[in-house]
Amino acid sequence: MLFEEMWRDLAPVGRFDATGGYRRYSYAAAELECRAWFEAQARERGLTVETDRNGNLWAWWGAPAAGDAVVTGSHLDSVPDGGAFDGPLGVVSAFAALDLLRAGGFEPRRPIGVAAFVEEEGARFGLACLGSRLLTGAVDPAKARALTDEQGTTLADAMSSAGFDPERIGRDQRLLDRIGVYVELHIEQGRAQIDLGAPIAVGSAIWPHGRWRFDFEGEANHAGTTRIEDRVDPMLTYANTVLAARKKAKLAGALATVGKVHCEPNGTNAIPSRVRAWIDARASTEDTLASVLAELEQATHERARRDGTKATVTRESYSAEVAFDLALRDNLGAILGGVPVLATGAGHDAGVLASSLPTAMLFVRNPTGVSHAPGEFAEIPDCLAGAEALATVLRELAA
Amino acid sequence: MLFEEMWRDLAPVGRFDATGGYRRYSYAAAELECRAWFEAQARERGLTVETDRNGNLWAWWGAPAAGDAVVTGSHLDSVPDGGAFDGPLGVVSAFAALDLLRAGGFEPRRPIGVAAFVEEEGARFGLACLGSRLLTGAVDPAKARALTDEQGTTLADAMSSAGFDPERIGRDQRLLDRIGVYVELHIEQGRAQIDLGAPIAVGSAIWPHGRWRFDFEGEANHAGTTRIEDRVDPMLTYANTVLAARKKAKLAGALATVGKVHCEPNGTNAIPSRVRAWIDARASTEDTLASVLAELEQATHERARRDGTKATVTRESYSAEVAFDLALRDNLGAILGGVPVLATGAGHDAGVLASSLPTAMLFVRNPTGVSHAPGEFAEIPDCLAGAEALATVLRELAA
Repeated sequence: MLFEEMWRDLAPVGRFDATGGYRRYSYAAAELECRAWFEAQARERGLTVETDRNGNLWAWWGAPAAGDAVVTGSHLDSVPDGGAFDGPLGVVSAFAALDLLRAGGFEPRRPIGVAAFVEEEGARFGLACLGSRLLTGAVDPAKARALTDEQGTTLADAMSSAGFDPERIGRDQRLLDRIGVYVELHIEQGRAQIDLGAPIAVGSAIWPHGRWRFDFEGEANHAGTTRIEDRVDPMLTYANTVLAARKKAKLAGALATVGKVHCEPNGTNAIPSRVRAWIDARASTEDTLASVLAELEQATHERARRDGTKATVTRESYSAEVAFDLALRDNLGAILGGVPVLATGAGHDAGVLASSLPTAMLFVRNPTGVSHAPGEFAEIPDCLAGAEALATVLRELAA
Repeated sequence: MLFEEMWRDLAPVGRFDATGGYRRYSYAAAELECRAWFEAQARERGLTVETDRNGNLWAWWGAPAAGDAVVTGSHLDSVPDGGAFDGPLGVVSAFAALDLLRAGGFEPRRPIGVAAFVEEEGARFGLACLGSRLLTGAVDPAKARALTDEQGTTLADAMSSAGFDPERIGRDQRLLDRIGVYVELHIEQGRAQIDLGAPIAVGSAIWPHGRWRFDFEGEANHAGTTRIEDRVDPMLTYANTVLAARKKAKLAGALATVGKVHCEPNGTNAIPSRVRAWIDARASTEDTLASVLAELEQATHERARRDGTKATVTRESYSAEVAFDLALRDNLGAILGGVPVLATGAGHDAGVLASSLPTAMLFVRNPTGVSHAPGEFAEIPDCLAGAEALATVLRELAA
């Protein structure tokens, strides 16, 4: 099946008509359909399909033995109303690259694997790169099993309902021992490659980044009768934090975003009792990130004192800076004839796996820079160039 | 059944254990149970029960004829996680007042009615005092039928599911013609009566008030890779509006509250595409209210220009100032021996009905001022004093 055919095949799965965005959440219907698509693609190519203990999918060309497999892939889940490319482009390009290698009569000396990691976005259970974190042991299995989605369903229950065994999750040394190198192809999530005129780039590093939950507690009361001076309104403290986050990040050359907020009781004529919000923050260095957060926490607590509210900050996830394997990156640059090398603010499974094995990333140009939104896209010629580049890399690494 | 027994009987209905607050939403299970309770209380007292075309409940002691009925009552629905007293206190006190009258051997010359108006809080369909607005023709029936709840269920569908006929809603002249006067007893929703040492007060007026929906549109994008200068983040415009609303209201001696907010897609690592929020605003005069809103809109549009977002303001509901019937208010004050007279910022069915007939309100002291929250309460002696006062008023008006 050609690249465009695979793409067309996958396009309707989990697409939400009202927004044009994708809602592919781990272990829910649309994501299970994506898994079935993956398995069908693998079988069509005579690859051996395997689901590991952590719910990640693998398709093998050749049987992997100790430390020799060359693996590529990405993920199939999406953020709420996300785009079609973030994740799936890497998986579709992986199969397309295999097709190119076979069409050229290539016989790999090392086995080649295609992987699709589960819950990369953390959109359902709140922890990004959950599949690769479990695989490498970066998250405690018991803690992971207890993660809940918006409806209060635990990861354990979601896995069980979908026919997976949650008791088996955790670091998978046997699987890791089989992999020699992991290369992830991904759509660029910014506009650097447009300015550089570069359809393909190689990743250098992932910015340190994290997710902090801010809980603002006040006192619910009647919106129409409670005097201003008697109010304890957490929405004010929240609003101040939103503006402070932007200001502190901008001054530091960092990024901070409030993309998710919950309000209780969320009634039009009641002062809220509680507002809960999540801050996503990233910076080029861990020191910068820490100082942005420290300043934001200080500003939040100062405002909370003024409002009489209580603010609590909880770090829900954190990823230190990841520098991809230097030798591998240089090798990829050389193989591809000197494409640009770029750092990214986005987390990826390749970043998590970097703790356990040499990893690298290839980026495909994004003509608008839009990502995590329905408008996210890449031009087909750039996608095909990506598959070609990935085939070139695999040919070198697996030879 | 004594006051305390009625109170105990109603206490568990629609109580949400996790918060201790009430969730009694029109035409949903808990509210239907409250209706059944009302009918049982009425039948126990040999009153004639009637549900009008708009879903409001009526219990009659004597048969109402042209313009002679003396009606008292309130409502049984609640805001999300509301208190036990806002609404039910007026209904329970109405039945208790009838008991006191009968215990004293009173024989009314004019029929006495107990009413419970539907959807007073607007918590399910977004339009406060829906039952009394429909009864008086203050809202268009077709528009009302199309109102939707959070799940997208229309009022028409909710009424049908609960066994009511939505095609019959609208101004009910025949019913209005039977009512001579309406007196609503309600828990005070502020702290004025504590300072005055007054368990009972008479209402003078309801502040003009309204509800405005603010829609902030931006562009969803990746929180980790979109440069600050490329962002169109509606959460920033929203946050600025929250702080501006408080500031403008405070300077004008008015009230403005953001109690409800929705964010799309509401993902931790996505810049929102849209934030929707509701502003509840009230002031002692319509001019003040209008100027607070005008200033807030201006501040919102200025900030939207800075953020590159688009802000749209829609007035969803508006109630002009209501002055209760002056002669009736003076009469009540005299009957009760000179209790204080207070204005309120809260809307009530008595305010809506004031357009069609003489109405008045009695307030029962609230020792904390908390309202629309689980902590809302009144001391039992004050509640009993309220029922006594209501009985005194009914005895005078129905003699």
